Amino acid sequence: MTQLESARQRTITPAMQRVAERENVTSTFIRDQVGRGRVVIPANVNHLPPNGRLDPIGIGRPIRTKVNANLGASPVASSKEGELEKLEWAVRYGADAVMDLSTGGDLNEIRQHLLANATVPLGTVPIYEMIVNRPVEALTPAIILETIERHARQGVDFMTLHAGLLKEHLPLVAKRTAGIVSRGGSLLARWMTYHNRENPIYELFDDISAILRQYDVTYSLGDGLRPGCLADATDQAQMAELRTLGELVQRAREAGVQVMVEGPGHIPYHEIELNMLVQQELCDGAPFYVLGPVVADIFPGYDHITSAIGATAAAFHGAAFLCYVTPREHLGLPTRDDVRMGCVAHRIAAHAADIARGLPAIREHDDAMARARAALDWPRQFELAFDGETARGLRDGALPEEADYCGMCGRDWCAMRITRDLERERNEAAANQSVPPRE
Amino acid sequence: MTQLESARQRTITPAMQRVAERENVTSTFIRDQVGRGRVVIPANVNHLPPNGRLDPIGIGRPIRTKVNANLGASPVASSKEGELEKLEWAVRYGADAVMDLSTGGDLNEIRQHLLANATVPLGTVPIYEMIVNRPVEALTPAIILETIERHARQGVDFMTLHAGLLKEHLPLVAKRTAGIVSRGGSLLARWMTYHNRENPIYELFDDISAILRQYDVTYSLGDGLRPGCLADATDQAQMAELRTLGELVQRAREAGVQVMVEGPGHIPYHEIELNMLVQQELCDGAPFYVLGPVVADIFPGYDHITSAIGATAAAFHGAAFLCYVTPREHLGLPTRDDVRMGCVAHRIAAHAADIARGLPAIREHDDAMARARAALDWPRQFELAFDGETARGLRDGALPEEADYCGMCGRDWCAMRITRDLERERNEAAANQSVPPRE
Repeated sequence: MTQLESARQRTITPAMQRVAERENVTSTFIRDQVGRGRVVIPANVNHLPPNGRLDPIGIGRPIRTKVNANLGASPVASSKEGELEKLEWAVRYGADAVMDLSTGGDLNEIRQHLLANATVPLGTVPIYEMIVNRPVEALTPAIILETIERHARQGVDFMTLHAGLLKEHLPLVAKRTAGIVSRGGSLLARWMTYHNRENPIYELFDDISAILRQYDVTYSLGDGLRPGCLADATDQAQMAELRTLGELVQRAREAGVQVMVEGPGHIPYHEIELNMLVQQELCDGAPFYVLGPVVADIFPGYDHITSAIGATAAAFHGAAFLCYVTPREHLGLPTRDDVRMGCVAHRIAAHAADIARGLPAIREHDDAMARARAALDWPRQFELAFDGETARGLRDGALPEEADYCGMCGRDWCAMRITRDLERERNEAAANQSVPPRE
Repeated sequence: MTQLESARQRTITPAMQRVAERENVTSTFIRDQVGRGRVVIPANVNHLPPNGRLDPIGIGRPIRTKVNANLGASPVASSKEGELEKLEWAVRYGADAVMDLSTGGDLNEIRQHLLANATVPLGTVPIYEMIVNRPVEALTPAIILETIERHARQGVDFMTLHAGLLKEHLPLVAKRTAGIVSRGGSLLARWMTYHNRENPIYELFDDISAILRQYDVTYSLGDGLRPGCLADATDQAQMAELRTLGELVQRAREAGVQVMVEGPGHIPYHEIELNMLVQQELCDGAPFYVLGPVVADIFPGYDHITSAIGATAAAFHGAAFLCYVTPREHLGLPTRDDVRMGCVAHRIAAHAADIARGLPAIREHDDAMARARAALDWPRQFELAFDGETARGLRDGALPEEADYCGMCGRDWCAMRITRDLERERNEAAANQSVPPRE
């Protein structure tokens, strides 16, 4: 039984208990949200203990916003060890889940290696493997089902499947500035055009659902027509596919399979709220998993920032799961340090949005930091910092270890210190006044 | 006559003409906005040609959002050459204005050196110099007026003056988590407490206005009680000072002096819109100059990102001028590379917000980039990138110079390429169909 089916039977699974514990809510609350499809727990039975090391998480609006980091080798750069190191860095710097998007090297080996080591949910885009060493036109239903079944058996927790991109949507792409920017989407468009047939992932949806149900793999319904630039945002192509994704959400749930929906991409800041509302409406509250969105196109090299801006707005207005974008987006595969920057930037977005959404207890950490700053307690500040090591490194190295000031203003110009002294004097004055006169 | 007084007499100055040209609007439009106080042109008569090298800019909601970079030596680190280099980097990476916040070294020399070289407006916080080598308690009206007059004579274009922090506001600080985090604010609080008298900057306001009017220095009314953590945001202390700042806006305008108003600081994401609306209402549309705001407290080392997120929301909802925050905020004085990161992050915020506000022609640059991406034209992408050098450096160095793909997906997996090929095939098929049959 999947988490969804268990929840419908009012059963609380160990995974639901663990998610409740992490989120500091009751397990009945998590069960009810999973039952309604508002929260998913991507937890393949073969990745959960005792088969695997997964420590399950929940994804959905009623709980904290989650962050995904994309890993994976490409034909241009690939190494099993390199990807494992990136996995470690991703988790260390705030990723709640990872995707293995490998398109080069020994895909099976890299995936199994990552799955064996990942304590976080791991997702894949099976179509990538389907067309390694094979022209996309040669893709058959048998290859599709076999590949998905193998990923599921290996323990993959969620899969991006571009089931909502239909043949009838393709003419809408011609009007676009940047066309199709999703790899999976462009491959399926090629297949449909070549064969003049409907998207095979769409046609095989019931068979695929049966496989995912067996291992409790969560659908991540891919948006093959996500806009790849501001000019294409919220256009007919994007909206047409989203309507189909909304129908597939219902079909997945009817099949007992957990489901989330993927979203853009590139969106101007003022259109983000609208995009989030439309998705929640069309997809009946299925968790929205967005890539960014980036809010400007002219900042390659800094797209972790254009993306963190959009991701904060998205998480505030309706997204539940943020796929990171690294500084190397649009340019190359991320290095270990790009992974760090991407993870931290989107952890910031998730945290800022969760504070703004008023989730319980989320700001306690920030308030503790504010108190440490007011107390000029630097060791405590580094302890509370999300990345204390980096913060410590940026503090002026010339300062004595025990200095209770920083290099911004120096000791005597420190507003915190002046305020603290003023406060102390005020308190002393008050104390003196309240001392009873001597006899 | 100040720009404000000229505008009121319906005169279009050369500075207004230049601003109109930069913003691609009519000079009458700029004149009218300056006359209403909705746009300021910080342009000291001694910094404008022929006395100086200033190329004037406008700041206000009707035109593009501007970015400020803080420079300046501290007692801990100071060098004239270092600050000049930072000035160059700031302008190169998108600063529209700079502030010299020096509190160490030879303040007069550094300031004059920066002014002689700055083609962008330069601001100062004169109280810093007033208390170098002097306890703040020793500050007198004569020192205050003399220092402001000297800065004005030297060509400073705008000055932060904490005139709105009143004695009656100080008890409101006691309730705070982080007290006063503005250096100027804390110094004046100390003075007021020591002398048990009203803020001298407030009391001297008319005299100060007379000096600023003479050189056409723009007021940047400082927020000495800006919140220094999320817990203190939008509190009574902040709002009480803001009401006083609103009154001073009217008094400055009556004196013929241009005026903008400074704002926070640290604000949770969901309170930013409210903060912007309240300021615009209380300050009668005077340009709002915000520091960030940062939207989380636990990310020292990454506060250019927490700040860019808040700055985008601020610029979308009402701010006109964004003071950058660098990765070293809360830790130390920025290096040259911190200046670059801070400038780019806030240039992103300004640009994303201006797109969202629908300013004319602002997105053309992004659309050109989208076309270059779709065409796989890499040289053009680097040309259009805001920081093409950094973008070029991040692209996989192993790729041949003329490669029309990147290291993310490699050549064959490129969605852009697949889409382009599909489009070409579709067009060829259509062309073949439309060829008339041979005779």
